[in-house]
Amino acid sequence: MGPHPAVAAIRLAVRRVLHDILNDHHTTGVPGRQATGERPDRTAERSPSPLVLVACSGGADSMALASAVAFEAPKLGIRAGGVTIDHGLQPGSGLRADEVVLRLHELGLDPVESIAVSVGREGGPEAAARDARYAALDAIAERHRATAVLLGHTRDDQAETVLLGLARGSGIRSLSGMAAVSGAGGRYRRPFLQLDRQTARKACMVQSLPVWDDPHNADPAYTRSRLRHEGLPALEKALGKGVVEALARTAQLSRDDADALDAWASQAEASVRDAAGQLECTKLYALPPAVRRRILRRAAIEAGAPAGSLFARHIEELDRLITGWRGQGAINLPGKVVAQRQGGRLVIRQG
Amino acid sequence: MGPHPAVAAIRLAVRRVLHDILNDHHTTGVPGRQATGERPDRTAERSPSPLVLVACSGGADSMALASAVAFEAPKLGIRAGGVTIDHGLQPGSGLRADEVVLRLHELGLDPVESIAVSVGREGGPEAAARDARYAALDAIAERHRATAVLLGHTRDDQAETVLLGLARGSGIRSLSGMAAVSGAGGRYRRPFLQLDRQTARKACMVQSLPVWDDPHNADPAYTRSRLRHEGLPALEKALGKGVVEALARTAQLSRDDADALDAWASQAEASVRDAAGQLECTKLYALPPAVRRRILRRAAIEAGAPAGSLFARHIEELDRLITGWRGQGAINLPGKVVAQRQGGRLVIRQG
Repeated sequence: MGPHPAVAAIRLAVRRVLHDILNDHHTTGVPGRQATGERPDRTAERSPSPLVLVACSGGADSMALASAVAFEAPKLGIRAGGVTIDHGLQPGSGLRADEVVLRLHELGLDPVESIAVSVGREGGPEAAARDARYAALDAIAERHRATAVLLGHTRDDQAETVLLGLARGSGIRSLSGMAAVSGAGGRYRRPFLQLDRQTARKACMVQSLPVWDDPHNADPAYTRSRLRHEGLPALEKALGKGVVEALARTAQLSRDDADALDAWASQAEASVRDAAGQLECTKLYALPPAVRRRILRRAAIEAGAPAGSLFARHIEELDRLITGWRGQGAINLPGKVVAQRQGGRLVIRQG
Repeated sequence: MGPHPAVAAIRLAVRRVLHDILNDHHTTGVPGRQATGERPDRTAERSPSPLVLVACSGGADSMALASAVAFEAPKLGIRAGGVTIDHGLQPGSGLRADEVVLRLHELGLDPVESIAVSVGREGGPEAAARDARYAALDAIAERHRATAVLLGHTRDDQAETVLLGLARGSGIRSLSGMAAVSGAGGRYRRPFLQLDRQTARKACMVQSLPVWDDPHNADPAYTRSRLRHEGLPALEKALGKGVVEALARTAQLSRDDADALDAWASQAEASVRDAAGQLECTKLYALPPAVRRRILRRAAIEAGAPAGSLFARHIEELDRLITGWRGQGAINLPGKVVAQRQGGRLVIRQG
């Protein structure tokens, strides 16, 4: 008799990603070594068994991930460790982190560490916690020379991320959610991005893995929690059960589209600059609006406008210097960046 | 003392669109004449005062539109008429249509007509009613040689349309909602696409215009109605009041992006076909996924697959013949279309 379908599903998802990691590892050798000038084939021969780290909060998604990695990694000659981040945001968080370490050890992961971080305030509580978490994960991955850090984000998390991006109304890049592979050198991998949360939870249950429900996940003070418990269920009720899957598919399609348009804008940017490197308005005018706006956005950021403060309306105003030219004056952009049209050129610089 | 802000807002929105219509009219002459070989300047001189028709259900949005058009059109030398469609779906719909005709006459619109249509079943009740409605509007526009048909869709309708597209999960084209200008020769115009429903309703109230609330709009049997009364409010509660605006902005950005990528795919398609017109797999492989998938979709439709039955998963399977080639067999697509890889070429044909 095989494993329960939920356990089979999480293991299959993990196996696929571990295979990818192994392929990449054999092609490029140990991370950080590819630039040393050693011949890649020799590096691959001598590289030790690769290490992957599971980032685990103790919640159902990442506990399911840890259990599947502990089961699959040894069969592929991969070492599997674990890490839990103590954000220090709730009383007793240190004790809980110790408990997660214990459980990851019990699953057979090694090394296992708990890392305490201090969460700032920049960008709101959720963004600050995320920044602190990834900084700590980056640091531990480098310290252990880990090939990859595996994250337990599910298709449901992806759907929520797409809706959060939709609420920004800033275009398809913000609809593209989380990538299956991200970070420096493709360090972060998300094996469960096409798996639903219910399957992860079920897999923990049938494996008798105790899971911890983060009270933050049910706290209506957090946007994501409101979305999870009210927004998304209401949307499913109105639009049908396929909404989560549709949102996840939208993420993938939007990501590919955004990548293609970014590539187009990169190429086109060179062709709209004159010999002095200035943007020529008539050439910008001839481009499709989607490509032109991307070039304008890049130019504004290059001139010093902070990407996070640059909204669609800023780019629209900038675009009107090209498409709706009536002799209007200089435009103020975030970061004290000023844009104006001068002699058929668009001049963007920090004032 | 000027008009109430809501009335000023609807009039401004209408004025802008009427100006656009006038510009287009003077450039191309009366619709249907531009291809006759007459010199455009002479055509423009001799063209009679253009006619615009307001499509009006008697609801707040389209009554507000009718009132603003009746006020603004004469000042620009534009004739304004109205039309109401009797879908025959509710008892007494004929009487109601007569009442709308009366009200449009009272606003000073001329000509005003009521047209009874018979709604089929194709594609579900909402799609069937829409198809019948636009066929009737096309017919009356041609009969009266109208320059434009104005529709009362608001920013809220646009937000709902984006969410309906999102639920399909079929990519950014379905996120692009309704266009401000659409139909043959740009016949359909939507002046209120950036105006919220509340403003239209307020404008009716302060002008003492009686409005009719379509019971379908509150009937939870209709997806759009569930979205309007439950889905969207829950999303606003979770994500904040700016959601409708963000969705409408997403529509515009997605439309521009989808247009640019379609144009790219059109261009690229020629370059990936061999002398015999067949698709070369290695050349397809080299394209960005977003462009390649659009070419594959076009090729499948060209071979006879009905666009409406062709889903993302079909295109993904087709794409694996290019990117994940392991000697797999022929793929069945909707419309009895069969795709297979033969000698480095992708052959798609109706079986």
